[in-house]
Amino acid sequence: MSESRPTASVLVTGSELLTGHVADANGPFVARSLGDLGFAVRRVLLVGDRPEDLRTALEFVAGDDLVVTSGGLGPTADDLTADVVAEFAGAPMEVDTALQERIHARVAGWAARAGWDGPALDAATAKQARVPRGGSVLEPVGTAPGLAVSREGGPLVVVLPGPPRELTGMWPAALAAEPVAVLLARTPHAEPTLLRFAGLPESEIAETLRVIGTDLDLSRVEITTCLRRSELEVDLHPLPGAEPVARDLAERIVDRHRRKLISDDGSTTDELVADALAGRGWTVATGESCTGGLLAGRLVDRSGSSAYVAGGVVAYSDAAKTALLDVPAALVAEHGAVSPEVARALADGARARFGADVGVGITGVAGPGGGTEAKPVGYVCFCVTTADGQVIARDPQLPGGRADVRERSVDLAMHLLLRVTGVTGPDAHR
Amino acid sequence: MSESRPTASVLVTGSELLTGHVADANGPFVARSLGDLGFAVRRVLLVGDRPEDLRTALEFVAGDDLVVTSGGLGPTADDLTADVVAEFAGAPMEVDTALQERIHARVAGWAARAGWDGPALDAATAKQARVPRGGSVLEPVGTAPGLAVSREGGPLVVVLPGPPRELTGMWPAALAAEPVAVLLARTPHAEPTLLRFAGLPESEIAETLRVIGTDLDLSRVEITTCLRRSELEVDLHPLPGAEPVARDLAERIVDRHRRKLISDDGSTTDELVADALAGRGWTVATGESCTGGLLAGRLVDRSGSSAYVAGGVVAYSDAAKTALLDVPAALVAEHGAVSPEVARALADGARARFGADVGVGITGVAGPGGGTEAKPVGYVCFCVTTADGQVIARDPQLPGGRADVRERSVDLAMHLLLRVTGVTGPDAHR
Repeated sequence: MSESRPTASVLVTGSELLTGHVADANGPFVARSLGDLGFAVRRVLLVGDRPEDLRTALEFVAGDDLVVTSGGLGPTADDLTADVVAEFAGAPMEVDTALQERIHARVAGWAARAGWDGPALDAATAKQARVPRGGSVLEPVGTAPGLAVSREGGPLVVVLPGPPRELTGMWPAALAAEPVAVLLARTPHAEPTLLRFAGLPESEIAETLRVIGTDLDLSRVEITTCLRRSELEVDLHPLPGAEPVARDLAERIVDRHRRKLISDDGSTTDELVADALAGRGWTVATGESCTGGLLAGRLVDRSGSSAYVAGGVVAYSDAAKTALLDVPAALVAEHGAVSPEVARALADGARARFGADVGVGITGVAGPGGGTEAKPVGYVCFCVTTADGQVIARDPQLPGGRADVRERSVDLAMHLLLRVTGVTGPDAHR
Repeated sequence: MSESRPTASVLVTGSELLTGHVADANGPFVARSLGDLGFAVRRVLLVGDRPEDLRTALEFVAGDDLVVTSGGLGPTADDLTADVVAEFAGAPMEVDTALQERIHARVAGWAARAGWDGPALDAATAKQARVPRGGSVLEPVGTAPGLAVSREGGPLVVVLPGPPRELTGMWPAALAAEPVAVLLARTPHAEPTLLRFAGLPESEIAETLRVIGTDLDLSRVEITTCLRRSELEVDLHPLPGAEPVARDLAERIVDRHRRKLISDDGSTTDELVADALAGRGWTVATGESCTGGLLAGRLVDRSGSSAYVAGGVVAYSDAAKTALLDVPAALVAEHGAVSPEVARALADGARARFGADVGVGITGVAGPGGGTEAKPVGYVCFCVTTADGQVIARDPQLPGGRADVRERSVDLAMHLLLRVTGVTGPDAHR
């Protein structure tokens, strides 16, 4: 389906990625960016640090229009990406003395503190300042410059450093580099649409697409659905010329599932909650039991959150619920710590104690132990109350293990916050 | 360096992985398991759902001894992994009627609720019950069975479902399947050592390895270092016969950096903290400002944590610090909300309010705004106090952006908890 878009692959080097101890962040970042720019991303490869690993990987993706590599640009002898790419492109290496000066200036202070002497430092900077003939230099963000090098007959190879901060920092310069800009100029403009829903099963979207497909030709819209716990993302990428079809499709999907829509412009729940609270001038306080601070942590994740987050209490024990959030001991005794009544008291208590406009209470059975027949693992009670008298309560049975239940609980609380602000809000959790 | 170990590659299928919107968990899980079993893991490939994507990827890794795939085993027509692998292995597909019965029994209830009729259900289960001739069946964890199929001359291909829960659930059966067991039997036993340090820069480990390498031949030990924020993992994988060298190396590394050692047996900080608190019979309470509940969330992440987590307060505002954790307003006025004095008061307040044995206070400038010359972004004050009179305080300047500072702060608080329990504990943050 992607014949009419340039193709791209991402090569991430790093033996540590093959131990499974660390997750790669560069592959998803680059893949997402390239997809949004209109490329058909064909694969992401994680390979080791040895030159032959990279060499065989480059040959594997040699049929693509664009290859982006990350890693292997350090000053030491075993950082060989630039050399392997130059060899692949058939371009001899040449030292760019002006670039060497600039690298030298960047690292001089650090090298002095590390006790590096002149010749060793010169050797290191000379290594990093070698550029394949005809290649473009991307100015260093850390100490390593990036490169853009074309092989005769394709592909164009963009060489980026491995540390995610350096890679993302260099990305705008990579896109602006002359050979990349030329390729981008002939890449059909992508007009992707990202629809985000709460609590919508993938099977329902599949059925919706089947029905719409009976009178709309969807063959030129790449549709990817992605279920992330309780949120479903539907990503529509029209091939060139199919943009009107994709817009029509997006409208029809939204029409059928409007009650569960979070956003149709890619906005995340977190962005919407932050904007909604800030827009109202409201502050929020949390009273969490089973989620143990995860909701508070997520709310303060954004910079500027101190404007709308008053604070929160993690009250695992009954005594803490009473002492810190004024949950009446008799209420706990009568209904149990996991009950809609206690969720409400947690919300009210948090709101009162922090002097906030909105209170959120969460109490549930995260598991694996602690479940009963009446209140099994996954049973979680939510309540959101506001100073102006709104009360929204839910007590769903959430699927999955301990981590799942807790993460879904935080999602659900965020959706209820959206709802209570009245700005938007899926009603997906009844 | 891996000539004497069988090689393996991991193929993860799923177009949604190429959008960058979702992170792959299967590749790291399988890669780590295979590495620990003694395989040299050569690459992890993320490819799309189209048959030709998988076909070309299989040819690319055909030289390996073992290939593990994930994804593409569903009941619908576009789930084609089993067919493509059968074609790759040159084995015709045959319906295993007994397996079909078992799949039918698993999905009957769900299908009835979904309104699936007999013929459609039969077609779906028949599709999932097709097995390449000579292949081994791995019993379904969800609805899809896995497979193990050998190609003449190699490789052995293990086909697993995409949902991480199903993949990890099927993994023990995959390793026990006859052709995999045969391959494992001729795989040299791996004796990996994982050393974990706090606050040790990679450059120091590099220097240590250089020094040790002058009188110990390290050429047959694969050494991978991985920096995860404030923790450094050093992974030693000896090639067959080099186990004594690796043990010697591990001892020498630990000798040089003992003060920063967290564990030499792979134990995580979270495991050690949980064990240490439970072993002491202590409970912990948190008073968090800039980390906004992340420490509490991490502590309660483990099941059974209610035994040693009393609770916590997220007190962003000065008023909340005073109202909920008894931080004297005069103390804040005199020293500022971000100060060692307030960190101490937060720790004491949390301990007192929750009746806990240990209190942790964190207050800092997470950024991006709010920094001053005296207290720049990244300046964070920590205090841990205990009912038996211990006080440990730190106020480092942490590097990175907002997320970095907060994550590193949580790490550091966990390390201080290790220290205060006296069971172990790196002193890495002075």
